[in-house]
Amino acid sequence: MNLKIRLLTYGALLFFSTTIFANDPLPSWNDGNAKQTIIHFVSTTTQQNSKNYVAENKRIAVFDNDGTLWVEHPIYVQFAFALDRIKVLAPEHPEWKSQQPFKAIIENDVNKLAHLNESEIYQIVMITHAGITSDAFNEIVRNWLKTAQHPRFKVAYTKLVYQPMIELMDYLRANGFKTFIVSGGGVEFMRTFTEQSYDVPPWQVIGSTIKLAYQEQKGKHVLMRLPHMEFIDDKSGKPIAIETDIGIRPIAAFGNSDGDYQMLAWTSEGTGPKLAMIVHHTDAQREYKYDRDTMVGKLDKALDAAKTHGWVLINMKEDWKHIWKD
Amino acid sequence: MNLKIRLLTYGALLFFSTTIFANDPLPSWNDGNAKQTIIHFVSTTTQQNSKNYVAENKRIAVFDNDGTLWVEHPIYVQFAFALDRIKVLAPEHPEWKSQQPFKAIIENDVNKLAHLNESEIYQIVMITHAGITSDAFNEIVRNWLKTAQHPRFKVAYTKLVYQPMIELMDYLRANGFKTFIVSGGGVEFMRTFTEQSYDVPPWQVIGSTIKLAYQEQKGKHVLMRLPHMEFIDDKSGKPIAIETDIGIRPIAAFGNSDGDYQMLAWTSEGTGPKLAMIVHHTDAQREYKYDRDTMVGKLDKALDAAKTHGWVLINMKEDWKHIWKD
Repeated sequence: MNLKIRLLTYGALLFFSTTIFANDPLPSWNDGNAKQTIIHFVSTTTQQNSKNYVAENKRIAVFDNDGTLWVEHPIYVQFAFALDRIKVLAPEHPEWKSQQPFKAIIENDVNKLAHLNESEIYQIVMITHAGITSDAFNEIVRNWLKTAQHPRFKVAYTKLVYQPMIELMDYLRANGFKTFIVSGGGVEFMRTFTEQSYDVPPWQVIGSTIKLAYQEQKGKHVLMRLPHMEFIDDKSGKPIAIETDIGIRPIAAFGNSDGDYQMLAWTSEGTGPKLAMIVHHTDAQREYKYDRDTMVGKLDKALDAAKTHGWVLINMKEDWKHIWKD
Repeated sequence: MNLKIRLLTYGALLFFSTTIFANDPLPSWNDGNAKQTIIHFVSTTTQQNSKNYVAENKRIAVFDNDGTLWVEHPIYVQFAFALDRIKVLAPEHPEWKSQQPFKAIIENDVNKLAHLNESEIYQIVMITHAGITSDAFNEIVRNWLKTAQHPRFKVAYTKLVYQPMIELMDYLRANGFKTFIVSGGGVEFMRTFTEQSYDVPPWQVIGSTIKLAYQEQKGKHVLMRLPHMEFIDDKSGKPIAIETDIGIRPIAAFGNSDGDYQMLAWTSEGTGPKLAMIVHHTDAQREYKYDRDTMVGKLDKALDAAKTHGWVLINMKEDWKHIWKD
């Protein structure tokens, strides 16, 4: 090869690789089955001449939050908020010093806290999430998120969102998809950070809800949070919430536990092309490693179904170049 | 004036009036207080240098549907659907021939129908709206809307949406507002036509909901409509639904009855600039004339509050050049 041809060839290669790099919509993903599946799905559903083309107003993608978009170990972030909040409220409740489950929280009795029963958890959640207006609650959560730190990573929880999933959401939106969060988490809790963290507007965040009462206070109205659940957006609640709040069956769904099983099934049973993926926590070093049975939920039914239903696993250790948001 | 100057003047006038005309965002509105109020509100909330500037992600506008965006007389369109549906189902229920309220519907007993009690109305709604999957229900509504006619105007109900309100929604959206429907009507019923009629996507339509169950049928899942209300999106339900489903307090609200009173109050009690308007049905000739007390609801509390709260009436007869969608 003479010099001129070599230079041209190198130039072309350089141009080519630069173009590839500039166009990579998922730079934090390693090449592999998960990334290829996503890119293939988006390409074929958005090209007008593709037999799998989907009209833009039907391109709905739904995402679980805890464990799918941000960290959920060692405990759900919202439960960490509740525990911290009990400590803040404790001085007003001297009786808690000798009353469970509050005693365990105040004394940081890890052993007892690891074995709270459902009714104790419910009690903790209601005391910390109700009896206050929506506006006041939202302000408390916003302030807590500014200062609270993850026990292992020692950074704010909002730093512990998954960069690859943010790129995935951006990529979908750039291709005409609407992205929704459909999570068991409290809807108002999530909305304090979801717009900034994921670029998802509040009305595209669907979650569990507490009963609200419209009440008058000093001549103005408030929305008072009552100590009763209105709707639990988990398991079968997810397809129900999707129908009620979105009104269109999704063509793409992303989850990480059995709480997402019904949402993944509802999506993948639809007609036409669809994509159902499970974030599989396989990285003990950079994040956590767990699946079938963990403190915060199971991944059992959904893992088995993945094989029979063609759901694609995202192997955190292998598929993700980076884990945390830049 | 010499000819040249006269031609220049006419030219300038012509240019000026053409510009005005081309730029009029609300061509079906007569000039008057209502139109000026809207244009002033939109201009001042969207100009960066205005002291009333509102960031784009806070520009939320909510609209009631029945009587605000489309006709609600002589009866709610959704109730007309229910009555027609009873007639369709009647052959399967021979017992209805002698059983009220079905007998009255089958025999078109206008006198009896005008005096149905709440429990009879509830029974009619549940029989016609439940016991069937969401998909099947939506299909039935879509087909009904294609053929059903308004008893007075003899056209499809979807022709009886208000052109001035469509222009208003377009105008708001063109200025960065998000438009939501917040109506007592059934959310799934509305979504069969709201995207086409108002350009509002399904997830921005909030309404009353029936209880859904996620069930398996022949190896696939369905959402079954159960004969129980889940949420009634009327009166105090409206601000609650706004908080739960949108998550931002609106800065503009449009209603037409006491069912909208709380939504208008919730909006107008917010901080910063806001706009609350009431469509006042004053046009017996082109549409209907009613306010304080009518068959389908009252406009009483809201009409009184308009004066004290600065809510602006839209006088259908005076303010609207055209009524129906082009």
